Amino acid sequence: MNSDEFRIRGKELIDYIADYMENIHEHRVTPNVEPGYLKPLLPLDAPQKGEEWEIIFKDFQDKILPGVTHWQHPRFHAYFPAGNSYPSILGELLSSGLGVLGFSWAASPSCTELETIVLDWLGKMLNLPKSLVPTCTDEKEVLTERDLNGNCNVPNFNKTEDNRDDDEIDQRPEGGGVILGSASECVLVSLLSARSSMLRKLKSENPFTEDGVLLSKLVMYTSKLAHSCVEKAGMMAMVKIRILEPDENYSLRGETLEKALIEDQSNGLVPFFVSCTLGTTSCCSFDNLIEIGQICNRENIHLHVDAAYAGSALVCEELRFFSSGLELVDSFNFNPNKWMLMNFDCSCL
Amino acid sequence: MNSDEFRIRGKELIDYIADYMENIHEHRVTPNVEPGYLKPLLPLDAPQKGEEWEIIFKDFQDKILPGVTHWQHPRFHAYFPAGNSYPSILGELLSSGLGVLGFSWAASPSCTELETIVLDWLGKMLNLPKSLVPTCTDEKEVLTERDLNGNCNVPNFNKTEDNRDDDEIDQRPEGGGVILGSASECVLVSLLSARSSMLRKLKSENPFTEDGVLLSKLVMYTSKLAHSCVEKAGMMAMVKIRILEPDENYSLRGETLEKALIEDQSNGLVPFFVSCTLGTTSCCSFDNLIEIGQICNRENIHLHVDAAYAGSALVCEELRFFSSGLELVDSFNFNPNKWMLMNFDCSCL
Repeated sequence: MNSDEFRIRGKELIDYIADYMENIHEHRVTPNVEPGYLKPLLPLDAPQKGEEWEIIFKDFQDKILPGVTHWQHPRFHAYFPAGNSYPSILGELLSSGLGVLGFSWAASPSCTELETIVLDWLGKMLNLPKSLVPTCTDEKEVLTERDLNGNCNVPNFNKTEDNRDDDEIDQRPEGGGVILGSASECVLVSLLSARSSMLRKLKSENPFTEDGVLLSKLVMYTSKLAHSCVEKAGMMAMVKIRILEPDENYSLRGETLEKALIEDQSNGLVPFFVSCTLGTTSCCSFDNLIEIGQICNRENIHLHVDAAYAGSALVCEELRFFSSGLELVDSFNFNPNKWMLMNFDCSCL
Repeated sequence: MNSDEFRIRGKELIDYIADYMENIHEHRVTPNVEPGYLKPLLPLDAPQKGEEWEIIFKDFQDKILPGVTHWQHPRFHAYFPAGNSYPSILGELLSSGLGVLGFSWAASPSCTELETIVLDWLGKMLNLPKSLVPTCTDEKEVLTERDLNGNCNVPNFNKTEDNRDDDEIDQRPEGGGVILGSASECVLVSLLSARSSMLRKLKSENPFTEDGVLLSKLVMYTSKLAHSCVEKAGMMAMVKIRILEPDENYSLRGETLEKALIEDQSNGLVPFFVSCTLGTTSCCSFDNLIEIGQICNRENIHLHVDAAYAGSALVCEELRFFSSGLELVDSFNFNPNKWMLMNFDCSCL
């Protein structure tokens, strides 16, 4: 496909998407197909020669579209609202047009810097506590200068985490965010970070004990109503998991956690991580962050908050009553691809 | 933005991308900016009201574009070729236009089924052994029928992995692929799968030993030239890692592995995973799959092959000499977003 054809097909596709969104209510919400419907409709091997766009697009309309679940349909009430929007589609188009990879600063400076800046914006929009969004904003002038020296929010290419001196680490603002692929990734990353910190501490106290033995003492906690990704993350991290009962309002309470902690500590286990949920998957209930946060802070336990579902609501001042206690947490994730008109996947840690 | 404006802006953007690709040689390859350049150019907070597209696009051109590293530039020789193409851009546009999530079959049947089918195509294009691509193709008619019953390549919603009976598992074709976000994810997933199998085996032999103690006996192997993601995966999985020396042709050899195995086994460790590379990051060297595969098969060690960089070359019959030994491996990943004109990110396991 040359650029002339791209111009034609691209514009046709823009019209197609606008038509699709305007007439989406004419489709069934869920497709009327059986598992395995597609295989007999497609050749067993990829075609040896490229095909004309018309043929490919006809295949899409005749074979793929009938198997699509229409997430943007006005009567789609499954899972969660996967908000899409025209600006979001255009943003993705521009990004795929540039074909840029942002895995390090040098790989694409504007890509990595824009991510950091917009995550700061988002954190402020949600009114997250200073412990989570960078303190940068308090000392703007000083930090802008430091920015230009590459010391703020920018990877330092000459030193690895290990040989940075402690002073430098202390000077760097804490907090700030990144975009990951899913809330599941955010929970896993937070858990691995907490595991690593706690193991380092235990190792310094027990330098001759095998890491695996220390690991077998670690225990994490979450509510029965937490998303399954929390339990999965625990399995990947190979730590013990205690699934706690929520109260009659489906909220995990401090008392329940406290009881479990005492029991486990008396059995020689080391509690190190709690994952709370703001907006559970099954019924959008809220764990009690204030009670749990106070316990975690006292016991030096990493408290993560998975607000994948309800986090976006914190943009509204009148809904911030459920954010009480966020100042006590160590990490927080939410999904702008739910409610915030972003297309999948976009989860912010 | 309503659909009328989307039609206008979308078409402008298609032209912009075509213009960009046609004139990309006029840009510098790497941007002339210092770390932190972007922050002073943008407001400290997100705007309270939406802005006009013209203003946003002017911001993009004045502030973002000057910080872009042009990966598609003809003189871009860094990292790896991040092949982009017009059809790939259109595919992504269509996919973001539909706004569909494919995390389970019901969430979007055509999305999940197409992934499986195209991965079969890709596997055949690379001439991967039957142990990696589904045996489906050998018994087409039987399997098409089974497909319609939902028993092939389709998640079974009523039974979890644990309560499926063994007969059913035996009947299911082995192999097949999925798309993950990066080669790093592929290596991690393969490693976790191998760890899980080996721990289950050890646990059945030592039912009263703590998982953490069993874990501390596991050891994995890779070459000094393997991508850093292999070592990172090992750290996440908390297993011991032995980084082995390649030979004078930068290839990891069976003899080196054998020596390490004997030493570790005599120290009571349990070798369970080897990650080889086809096309190392630093010099595109190739580990000796035949020698290593024979050892791994004999010792019941999971052999993973990271062909992120060179895998796409297997499409060419004349380059398949380096695939010898692939019939001995347990898992394999390669990145169509290198060489295969796919946009980032697309890594196939």
